[in-house]
Amino acid sequence: MTRRYKITLAYDGTAYCGYQRQGNGIAVQQRVEEALEYVNLAHVAFHGCSRTDSGVHAKGFVGYADLDKPIPPKNFVRAMNARLPPDIRVMRASITTPTFDAQRDVKGKEYRYFVYNAPILPPHLYPYWEHAHQPLDIPAMQEGASRFVGTHDFKSFSSISDRIPSTTVRDIYSFTVKKTGPRVVFAVQGKGFLYKQVRGMVGFLLRVGTGDEKPETVTELLEAPDTRTARVPSAPGRGLFLWRVWYK
Amino acid sequence: MTRRYKITLAYDGTAYCGYQRQGNGIAVQQRVEEALEYVNLAHVAFHGCSRTDSGVHAKGFVGYADLDKPIPPKNFVRAMNARLPPDIRVMRASITTPTFDAQRDVKGKEYRYFVYNAPILPPHLYPYWEHAHQPLDIPAMQEGASRFVGTHDFKSFSSISDRIPSTTVRDIYSFTVKKTGPRVVFAVQGKGFLYKQVRGMVGFLLRVGTGDEKPETVTELLEAPDTRTARVPSAPGRGLFLWRVWYK
Repeated sequence: MTRRYKITLAYDGTAYCGYQRQGNGIAVQQRVEEALEYVNLAHVAFHGCSRTDSGVHAKGFVGYADLDKPIPPKNFVRAMNARLPPDIRVMRASITTPTFDAQRDVKGKEYRYFVYNAPILPPHLYPYWEHAHQPLDIPAMQEGASRFVGTHDFKSFSSISDRIPSTTVRDIYSFTVKKTGPRVVFAVQGKGFLYKQVRGMVGFLLRVGTGDEKPETVTELLEAPDTRTARVPSAPGRGLFLWRVWYK
Repeated sequence: MTRRYKITLAYDGTAYCGYQRQGNGIAVQQRVEEALEYVNLAHVAFHGCSRTDSGVHAKGFVGYADLDKPIPPKNFVRAMNARLPPDIRVMRASITTPTFDAQRDVKGKEYRYFVYNAPILPPHLYPYWEHAHQPLDIPAMQEGASRFVGTHDFKSFSSISDRIPSTTVRDIYSFTVKKTGPRVVFAVQGKGFLYKQVRGMVGFLLRVGTGDEKPETVTELLEAPDTRTARVPSAPGRGLFLWRVWYK
């Protein structure tokens, strides 16, 4: 009897072209489906909560798969991890309702972005931390971040993807910037995000941090939504983690 | 006028065949000498404090180079890091005496080895942490580690390299094992170490941790030095860091 498994993945996105299968490179989804086929002895589709871009990481990416040879979740986790490469791990799995949809049922998502603010970026942080060598103005970035919170048209902060969204209005629940020593962590929560929106918002806030932009400009750009310009650069993918996803 | 620079490097060894030039693969030394040539506008040799194996990392690797176009150390650090790949960084540099020898003048070295002791190894720890999924007996490993301290013949714990040492006697100043949550950190200090000695000692202690060997056997193997056997496996290179080197 078929059972639906809710699966939480963590992955290091360095080696992948992103979560979803594309023309070039290996996708995380592909590796997960290969492991599922090994565990289930037949092809199984893995349905993820969202796409992540090339090089982007995940700590708590959620998806589901329907197994027609159900096994206890604990054994499922062990079998999947025995087959997956070490840069993709199943962290948790449980049997869920047959109607659970990892994308539609999302109540909220948190992304975190990591920036190391010091003259030299230690080499073992490079795969997961963006480097900002100039001192960043943290209060200015915090003010800028707070201006993103609420329901706004984020067109100026997103990029055009192959999936045209019906609207560029999104709802941000919270957006914080915290500094501990040289470590600056951006944490943003919302129901959903446009293509490259998080990297665009962080890219802009880093320009606020260096004094190239003012925090008030966040509000101006939200009130005059337009095609993204060079004022809104994408922060590199390697500093971004899909941190967690929660459901109704 | 030629000046000798004392240079402290940090590197992520994942992509390298080790510190020193060998037959196959790119060596850290090679990348450093390429950057030195760029800064000095002529070839400069870099003389390191020791070799590190393929995949081994460094937080504080010390070496020296003689520059015939001396520049202020701060500018030197910046110029080197502009040229080096992000997985190798010059962390510090200073002008030292013309007779400083990074290898001969060593007073002590500390290596650290990182083991994550939990059922699942998070993927972003994989490049720097060895995984032990079974619970490890920390007090037994601590007892084993303490038995290495002092002057002993470490033949049973080292491997044969292309440089035959005149003696396999070495002096260990301290060897600790600490656990914080799932993170187990081995820290060993000594004047110098034989080829693969640290990885051999850690490999054996991990077998003590799983109950496959007794801590007392450390003393037995030190008292009957012999060619290394399968009882002394090398812990993988990716968990090992040359942590710091200090001088007279």
